[in-house]
Amino acid sequence: MSFDVLQDKIRAMKNPTVAGLDARIEYVPEHLRQNAYAEYGPGFQGACEAIWQFNVGLIDALHDIVPAVKPQAAYYENLGWRGMELLERTIRYAKSKGLFVIADIKRGDIGSTAAAYAEGWLSGAKIEGRVFKSFDADCVTLNGYMGSDSINPFLKAARQEDKCVFVLVKTSNPGSGELQDLVAGDRQVYQVMGDLTQRLTGGTEGKYGYSIAGAVTGATYPSDIRALRKRLEHTFFLVPGYGAQGGTADDVKCAFDKYGHGAIVNSSRGIMCAWQKTGSDGTNFAAAARNAAIAMRDDIKQFVTIL
Amino acid sequence: MSFDVLQDKIRAMKNPTVAGLDARIEYVPEHLRQNAYAEYGPGFQGACEAIWQFNVGLIDALHDIVPAVKPQAAYYENLGWRGMELLERTIRYAKSKGLFVIADIKRGDIGSTAAAYAEGWLSGAKIEGRVFKSFDADCVTLNGYMGSDSINPFLKAARQEDKCVFVLVKTSNPGSGELQDLVAGDRQVYQVMGDLTQRLTGGTEGKYGYSIAGAVTGATYPSDIRALRKRLEHTFFLVPGYGAQGGTADDVKCAFDKYGHGAIVNSSRGIMCAWQKTGSDGTNFAAAARNAAIAMRDDIKQFVTIL
Repeated sequence: MSFDVLQDKIRAMKNPTVAGLDARIEYVPEHLRQNAYAEYGPGFQGACEAIWQFNVGLIDALHDIVPAVKPQAAYYENLGWRGMELLERTIRYAKSKGLFVIADIKRGDIGSTAAAYAEGWLSGAKIEGRVFKSFDADCVTLNGYMGSDSINPFLKAARQEDKCVFVLVKTSNPGSGELQDLVAGDRQVYQVMGDLTQRLTGGTEGKYGYSIAGAVTGATYPSDIRALRKRLEHTFFLVPGYGAQGGTADDVKCAFDKYGHGAIVNSSRGIMCAWQKTGSDGTNFAAAARNAAIAMRDDIKQFVTIL
Repeated sequence: MSFDVLQDKIRAMKNPTVAGLDARIEYVPEHLRQNAYAEYGPGFQGACEAIWQFNVGLIDALHDIVPAVKPQAAYYENLGWRGMELLERTIRYAKSKGLFVIADIKRGDIGSTAAAYAEGWLSGAKIEGRVFKSFDADCVTLNGYMGSDSINPFLKAARQEDKCVFVLVKTSNPGSGELQDLVAGDRQVYQVMGDLTQRLTGGTEGKYGYSIAGAVTGATYPSDIRALRKRLEHTFFLVPGYGAQGGTADDVKCAFDKYGHGAIVNSSRGIMCAWQKTGSDGTNFAAAARNAAIAMRDDIKQFVTIL
């Protein structure tokens, strides 16, 4: 069971955080960009090479500090098919370094279309009866607006491969309430989404007793996280919004259970772009990211004790 | 204004339908698969080549019958980065034949992440101040569960390029009601989504007076379409669910206004896989698709007169 693997990694490192790998060319230090452009030109190919060098540096610097990374598919897709090739390579490299990879894809479609996504990201494509893997992440994020038809095919693929998913429940952005906070009967829409997801999983699994579908719950709405933690006792939480978006360690603590289990907190810019705050030219980007990841770990450890 | 372009194409062809291009290898006739595998092997590369030949055949056979095509991103992503390269090529080829391309991506993310998707699919990626285009569709589908933060960046990119979007409002799948039909106050969630989208557009544009954001409204729920047509007078509708999913021409007619304008009906398997119902080996796939597209057009024309 994949959340067991993640929870074990978190316990081993005493660090319930995940580092975002958001491939924006603006985040890459000058020297990596110039080297890549010199070889491949200042277009898609050069940008992908620069980001690849950046990602490798980040993964090498972080893999013994953080248990997981979260590449955001949008930034790779932004660069066309070359960006998607870079994403495949980045996931493969991160896994080779022992990192748990959460592909932040937020996909949502139905039936055989959802199955096609699920195969591409989790269980592999079927071509003439054989299975071929491409993106092959450990876990993906999902959007369930279309209902259970959009979640079930991913649960099937995840189960087959001992993987897992996170469904968007209450997101961290300012406008998240426009739909998610609507009150329908005795529940808000995001609570319905959380309940629905749990019903589909068919119960808990593995030694830690989590269900195969976790929930995305934004750090910027701590009281909602607190309510969800009580409501969804056996659900693993992915918590975005720490740092740049305004969520604090004190805010995220309510995502964890009394053993300090069951949640992982994301930081993207805070770690990737730490070099920009050192006043340097970026040649120190890996060390700066490592220091920022350690600082984040220690910040959260003030509020969360992992047993 | 992009919905003007689409409506003009629909009027010129007297055909308010869009053909899905869902790149499943199982849909490709034997002869194309065997030729491709002989050259590139029975893996990702061979599958992409077979689907490319299939797509070219379909586009060539359909481009003077249907005004638009709708490639479904899931089936391309299923095949890893090679599938995404195939998708770029397919979109480029369809546009070169005069087809309006709706990329069915159903993306939904926030802020700069949504902007990254919007650039990749609509307005082009920015690398060192220059713009590079990759997927470059005329229009995309979106999932607004995260609220206005997930729609606005796409509207910005669309506006910049004279393009447009469709937001999922009421989808065609059996489980669509689980979230979308919840009653919050005096509206159902899908009505809130429709109203929200329209509020964000800032009004109508162009000679036909549609707003820049259309709505996806499934043919399988005709009474909901009827209500939405009244509620969202200036919204273009994309109507999936005709044919294989059970929607009929009589069901979809209420998506159109009194001039027969303002909607486009999708069929994917019904057209792409028409050859499978002819009892042949598939060498006739292009002619079969063309005949099916003509039959669909004539079926809908019984109920919808386009002025």
